[in-house]
Amino acid sequence: MGTSTSEKNTPPLTRRDLLAWIGKTAGASAMYDTMISMGLLAMPSAFAASNLNALPPGQGKAVLILGAGISGLMAAYELQKRGYNCEILELLDRPGGRNFTARKGSKVVEDTGPNGRTEQICDFDDGLYMNMGPARLPFHHERCMHYCNELKIPLEVYVMSNMANLYQSDKAFGGKAVPRYRLANDVNYHVADLLSKAVNQGALNEQLTGIDKKAFVAMLGQFGATMSSNTVGSDTPRNLCAEPMTVQAMCHPNPHLPLPEMMQSAFWNNPFFQPFEGDWEPTLFQPVGGMDKLVDAFVKHVGHRIRYRAKVNQIEVASEAVRVHYTDIETGKHLEVRGDYVLSSIPLPKLVDISNNFSEEYRAAVRAAKPGALYKLAWQSNQRFWEKSPYAIFGGISYTDSMLTQMWYPSNDYFSAKGVLPGCYCYDAQAKAYGNMSLTERIRAARRDGVKLHPEMQREDLLPSNKAVSIAWHQVEGQSGGYTLWNHADPKTEKHYQRLLKPEGRFFVIGDQLSPLPGWQEGAFMSAENAINQLV
Amino acid sequence: MGTSTSEKNTPPLTRRDLLAWIGKTAGASAMYDTMISMGLLAMPSAFAASNLNALPPGQGKAVLILGAGISGLMAAYELQKRGYNCEILELLDRPGGRNFTARKGSKVVEDTGPNGRTEQICDFDDGLYMNMGPARLPFHHERCMHYCNELKIPLEVYVMSNMANLYQSDKAFGGKAVPRYRLANDVNYHVADLLSKAVNQGALNEQLTGIDKKAFVAMLGQFGATMSSNTVGSDTPRNLCAEPMTVQAMCHPNPHLPLPEMMQSAFWNNPFFQPFEGDWEPTLFQPVGGMDKLVDAFVKHVGHRIRYRAKVNQIEVASEAVRVHYTDIETGKHLEVRGDYVLSSIPLPKLVDISNNFSEEYRAAVRAAKPGALYKLAWQSNQRFWEKSPYAIFGGISYTDSMLTQMWYPSNDYFSAKGVLPGCYCYDAQAKAYGNMSLTERIRAARRDGVKLHPEMQREDLLPSNKAVSIAWHQVEGQSGGYTLWNHADPKTEKHYQRLLKPEGRFFVIGDQLSPLPGWQEGAFMSAENAINQLV
Repeated sequence: MGTSTSEKNTPPLTRRDLLAWIGKTAGASAMYDTMISMGLLAMPSAFAASNLNALPPGQGKAVLILGAGISGLMAAYELQKRGYNCEILELLDRPGGRNFTARKGSKVVEDTGPNGRTEQICDFDDGLYMNMGPARLPFHHERCMHYCNELKIPLEVYVMSNMANLYQSDKAFGGKAVPRYRLANDVNYHVADLLSKAVNQGALNEQLTGIDKKAFVAMLGQFGATMSSNTVGSDTPRNLCAEPMTVQAMCHPNPHLPLPEMMQSAFWNNPFFQPFEGDWEPTLFQPVGGMDKLVDAFVKHVGHRIRYRAKVNQIEVASEAVRVHYTDIETGKHLEVRGDYVLSSIPLPKLVDISNNFSEEYRAAVRAAKPGALYKLAWQSNQRFWEKSPYAIFGGISYTDSMLTQMWYPSNDYFSAKGVLPGCYCYDAQAKAYGNMSLTERIRAARRDGVKLHPEMQREDLLPSNKAVSIAWHQVEGQSGGYTLWNHADPKTEKHYQRLLKPEGRFFVIGDQLSPLPGWQEGAFMSAENAINQLV
Repeated sequence: MGTSTSEKNTPPLTRRDLLAWIGKTAGASAMYDTMISMGLLAMPSAFAASNLNALPPGQGKAVLILGAGISGLMAAYELQKRGYNCEILELLDRPGGRNFTARKGSKVVEDTGPNGRTEQICDFDDGLYMNMGPARLPFHHERCMHYCNELKIPLEVYVMSNMANLYQSDKAFGGKAVPRYRLANDVNYHVADLLSKAVNQGALNEQLTGIDKKAFVAMLGQFGATMSSNTVGSDTPRNLCAEPMTVQAMCHPNPHLPLPEMMQSAFWNNPFFQPFEGDWEPTLFQPVGGMDKLVDAFVKHVGHRIRYRAKVNQIEVASEAVRVHYTDIETGKHLEVRGDYVLSSIPLPKLVDISNNFSEEYRAAVRAAKPGALYKLAWQSNQRFWEKSPYAIFGGISYTDSMLTQMWYPSNDYFSAKGVLPGCYCYDAQAKAYGNMSLTERIRAARRDGVKLHPEMQREDLLPSNKAVSIAWHQVEGQSGGYTLWNHADPKTEKHYQRLLKPEGRFFVIGDQLSPLPGWQEGAFMSAENAINQLV
């Protein structure tokens, strides 16, 4: 009641008082300099005003865009707004690039690998879909937020992680999948418990100079729930109850997992514990109905500018213009088109192979980009078994140290009859290995590892093999990977990256491939922004 | 590529192989006993089959239910299904009890406190609403999930917490609100850093017997991101970038908040760090359109059985029946109704004051329940400023160590024009203090503390005072608190609780007040379940 009493003695505040209070805090406080040095005054912004310079109107200047992925579509949309005359050449018969949502009838063509060319036609039931490429929009990807807002794309929450998600390793817990509400919370428990002991032993006296050790241990008690919690309105312990609760049966918390067993599982090699890297932190969103709603929205504005099935053969950079030679795949005709500028989102490892007259320096820079292998597999599931007993998993990701790596769960249409289960996500060596398999082998491998998380996955009637779709992005027609690797710490690599940020004459590289966020649409927007801002 | 090779040498698995594998893992593994002892085989279930016994059909037996809150409605619904003849007496002119969603025209009557009787009529714009009572459905509240499923109530994700939520204390950071992506992640950083040092000093050799210390320190490196991360597809650090990213400007992580300053803020006294207590862990849900959709769904089945504005005056328990005397508030008439059984969700502190012929033992048990004060305030906000720059907050809760305690953000209708901002949530002393204030004082106090999180909150045009609604549940007509406190560790209190689980003759107490989850609808369901199962 202390708060109550002091509250009642405080005279009512006027608006002027409030302003004075804000002024005092923000202006005169001795902490202000500290705040700036701590970066407390810089926060990310959503729906920020566009980062695009106010361009002089394009007055009909021709901009040729290679690739109708997110960066190309955004560039066309913004340049068209400013009076430029855009034309987009696209290799495939659809827009979007890696922003690709598989639905009934969607086609996945892979054209490398030991299996030669494979073609899958998605046979999901009507209404089911899976984002085979980008799948999430973090709250601080301000450009994504900006375009979803401007283009009026309905968003829903994407659940990146929840406490019912599982971690499975053959090396621990008898191979049994363990839910995050146990594993993650028990990591906190053990860490807090051990650190409290070290502090109480006086082991960290030097490091804790000037810190109230009693308060620090109290903080650890909350951090690891090492003391029983009495929080009002929250009576279930973090690691949940060993037996279901009833009015008679008070909750007995699950016993803490033993630290040696946890260590045995090597869980930390997968990002299964609580704190996520920046791009994974909630709140995240996804467009209602599929990530390609973003593609559709751009296409509504610039779709009439796209020439599909156009295979670029040659790029000729001249001082006044850029000439692009391409083949119309349908007719086989060789054509030529000229732009005052060219913006190319062609994957850099593919661009290398297109005949060009780039300088040696530029060519070396193009060659420096390293593509990363990426693989996804999606099951049609005829029941949403993962949402039911004993799992109660609604979205998020389960992890395994098997080849499968990650199993995602849909963040859409919860509680409905059927669903698409993104049953495998992996990269690097694992992705390459899946890519080398036949389509049948891929499905078999996903089932083999999947049953360790959910024994239901053995059931062909539940997850029919002929309804599964897989994609090895590094083998997909027109692509060379799921993302691009840049080692910015290496000065030589960084020099190449910096070179590509500048145009070669009137030729610009765009795409997430040339951004600090490879594999993210935010990176694609950033990069198109960079090219547009230089177009003056 | 090691994985790939071993993959390719493995012959295809048949279904029988898979079953054999599961059998081997689950049956023969030496770890199996360990798994049981660790509780790895018990997991919570969603949509579990009902916990209700198969009752003999009621054959028209009369069950009188006092209170049309969630427990009473559920009991009527289940008993009616089984042929019982139910009648519900409700004090208010609406069903739902504390499951109450405020909309244009909703009425909040508080009838105690120094201000006498106050009446608020909600003046939100059409389409805006706020759950003034329960607001969230955790994934492991299986009874809630069961009824939402059975009654076909559309659910959407409730965001309990996100990384853009703020913590504000006048004691640190110059009074500036700090986002969770910094504070929470930096707690992990400092904890991991200190514990690594202690381990490397050899301070915990005894406690870490049998644990690979190098692996443990590697785990801490991931846990606290003390080493820079190279995770594929995740290039933004946990505590985000000090300056906005562009293709030129690689991300420089925010500097770590200094531990002494963090300790100064006493952040851990609010549940602002990462791991949440069990009932707060994601995934959580809320009914689309308001928590009262659950009430509406029950009312569709049993609404014709409710007599509103019925004030119970006397309860007479006899061996063959229970007689209840009540006043019809509209007509002033005194009436009497008889039930073979009575289920009462009347708050225990109110039941104490109703004339009755309970045994001394039962009366003492009724008297043992202690109500807890709970307070909420909701603003209509004419812009969703918290979703925009610089905040980017989509749902979740910000905390302050001021009287305001918690500011919630709506998990519905993101990105729309207006919204309801649950601008204050608190309990105990703070809630009592707000309850003692006039309605005008409450609004002023919420604004005064709110501006420390969002200076925009000073703006009357943005958050009009005449559109704010507050509720002190411990003063609301017919209620005695927001939840009930039971100290189960105290044997005397526990004896009273246990006594109430059994009926007094044919009189049963129900409601979340008599459950291990007071203040949660799951507790209400549990308790009604208990009474119904004893009705044989």
